[in-house]
Amino acid sequence: MRTLHVLDTTLREGEQLTGAYFTLEQRVQIARLLDAVGVSFIEVPSPIASAETRRAVQEICGLQLRARVVAHVRCAEADVQAALETGVDGLNLFYGTSPELRSFSHGKRIEQIISDAVPLIRQIRAAGRYVRFSAEDAFRSDLVDLLTTFDAVVEAGAQRIGLPDTVGVATPRQVESLVRLCAERYPGVGIEFHGHNDTGCAVANTVAAFEGGADCLDVTVLGIGERNGIASLSGLIAQLYIHYPERLATYDLTRLPEVDRYVAECLHLSIPFNNPITAPGAFTHRAGIHTKAVLRNPRAYEILDPQDFGLARNVEVGSRYTGRYAVGHRAAALGIELNADEIVHLTQALKERADTGAMSQDEVDTFILNWYQEKGNLVWER
Amino acid sequence: MRTLHVLDTTLREGEQLTGAYFTLEQRVQIARLLDAVGVSFIEVPSPIASAETRRAVQEICGLQLRARVVAHVRCAEADVQAALETGVDGLNLFYGTSPELRSFSHGKRIEQIISDAVPLIRQIRAAGRYVRFSAEDAFRSDLVDLLTTFDAVVEAGAQRIGLPDTVGVATPRQVESLVRLCAERYPGVGIEFHGHNDTGCAVANTVAAFEGGADCLDVTVLGIGERNGIASLSGLIAQLYIHYPERLATYDLTRLPEVDRYVAECLHLSIPFNNPITAPGAFTHRAGIHTKAVLRNPRAYEILDPQDFGLARNVEVGSRYTGRYAVGHRAAALGIELNADEIVHLTQALKERADTGAMSQDEVDTFILNWYQEKGNLVWER
Repeated sequence: MRTLHVLDTTLREGEQLTGAYFTLEQRVQIARLLDAVGVSFIEVPSPIASAETRRAVQEICGLQLRARVVAHVRCAEADVQAALETGVDGLNLFYGTSPELRSFSHGKRIEQIISDAVPLIRQIRAAGRYVRFSAEDAFRSDLVDLLTTFDAVVEAGAQRIGLPDTVGVATPRQVESLVRLCAERYPGVGIEFHGHNDTGCAVANTVAAFEGGADCLDVTVLGIGERNGIASLSGLIAQLYIHYPERLATYDLTRLPEVDRYVAECLHLSIPFNNPITAPGAFTHRAGIHTKAVLRNPRAYEILDPQDFGLARNVEVGSRYTGRYAVGHRAAALGIELNADEIVHLTQALKERADTGAMSQDEVDTFILNWYQEKGNLVWER
Repeated sequence: MRTLHVLDTTLREGEQLTGAYFTLEQRVQIARLLDAVGVSFIEVPSPIASAETRRAVQEICGLQLRARVVAHVRCAEADVQAALETGVDGLNLFYGTSPELRSFSHGKRIEQIISDAVPLIRQIRAAGRYVRFSAEDAFRSDLVDLLTTFDAVVEAGAQRIGLPDTVGVATPRQVESLVRLCAERYPGVGIEFHGHNDTGCAVANTVAAFEGGADCLDVTVLGIGERNGIASLSGLIAQLYIHYPERLATYDLTRLPEVDRYVAECLHLSIPFNNPITAPGAFTHRAGIHTKAVLRNPRAYEILDPQDFGLARNVEVGSRYTGRYAVGHRAAALGIELNADEIVHLTQALKERADTGAMSQDEVDTFILNWYQEKGNLVWER
């Protein structure tokens, strides 16, 4: 079985989300939680970024995690030196290779990129550390520029090459195709993919990279990152759970909700309603047709079992789309046994109430109990 | 050019999000805003769902929108009758065809599904209305069951067939392949796709459906819906903007932020940070490398132009990842002209402050002004 590494870059890419800030304690705790889930790599920012960052990197390196700690570092002598002075297992070098980044970011030609990167890669290898080289904005880079750069960095000793979709422009087909091309050209070299979400396809692109031959996939908790972020850990896990479950054998999926909740709390965010697995409603069923079937067998509308993540499903009864089956079920759970006619009447009454506004579970229960006391007994003279 | 219809089902699928409720006024306003953006179809719930729903459907039909109004209706005589009594342009019939839904939802065999659906389709066509038939949970349905059902409903007069990924299990490749198979088998019949987001690929699957030959794609505002929702209108628009811009010729993209904001407000939600185009940070640039390049040319890190959506980009200066270029730029915007050395010192000071906690734009500006007054003048004796 081909290896698959998940690299979590919440501490680096994630903190580039607008307004985001993690304290030292939060950074350490996030690393611990990610390690408990089971990711292979934890990416940290360049230690040269700030004094507090350098301290955080050192402290995380000292945790003796199973995950390898890798620093995201510019191809600059001072940056590499600062990273090597910490205990990181490896350095993730990057350099923009697209015309856009060469023109408006660093202003270097491909030859200069190579002559900057190659001695640093040799230096990192000589120091006994792991090194990856990413061609930033790979999917807008000219193929000749990209391969010329990769040829040189692989020759210099880069153990993995990175294909980031830095601006979120790629399609799954493009990702799979470019990854496959590189996997064939560089046998024995790892391939990493990092996909931004500007056009909403970060998770799909990340899975496509795996299918093309990538052995390392970048994610962040909840998908936080620059602009509107990258692929989420929970999204990738949901995909692997369905399509490649054997890849999750070493993961503790029950720890996923904790890390999602923790990072959301650190950043004063809500977990988005659209997040796979840990969204507040990810296992909530609402429409009458759905609730009826799910109460009979959850597989009807669930492809992920919430219990595998330490979560519970929720059957929501308080909406105008509710149905008899779910209403009867809820009444029974409240200790009220109703016949078929009674359930029809209660459902109708509940739908009329829910037609005027949202109802919480407590409001639903109170409604059912009141209905039973005030109306049910009158109508059917029990 | 092949036609592409966008069907927005915020008013139907969207209100199935846990806790969601739209008032009559909100439903009408959402329909107006969607029409202003330019979607082809606005899907409403079955008028039989509730009295208020029937009123809302009638009112929306009376708006004389450009978009066609279609009701999402079970294959049941009473439901079809109720919908036909309103002014909807068409009926979107659905019936679960997967083993899971046949066993745990309605309990019907394929022959029964067909014998329920066919007379209703004929009745709807005889009434001069548009009719679509969706095989609910198509991607877990047996191919023979699926095609047997479609053969019959197409023969009966269904003008479009729907392939919903009801449980969010499909991959882009599967979607493209099944859609293509149906497009080849049913020439002249429209094909609709509706993709849930349980494994994070709703937008990618929806685009794959278009590439396979679908002519109608379902979305909701922000992607709200049962569990963790479906493809978002903004995600699909971002994809079309990049890959099929000619498809957006008739859309008013500047109205998109308004509809996203409005629906979020109706449901007391925040627009998720991961939403394409309208996320709070979708056009915010933060890391020093990014801000420098974007200030020189936004194309460096932007594939969508915020102005096309009536939005503005934001260069965030107040983080430990900030850079000299952005700091100097901000100082200049505040009327402070600094030389290169001064900018280096100010950047260092700002990074040290941001290393202790998040900073708002106001805090950054105050910091720069204070630094200039208290330190800048002392150090360089201007």
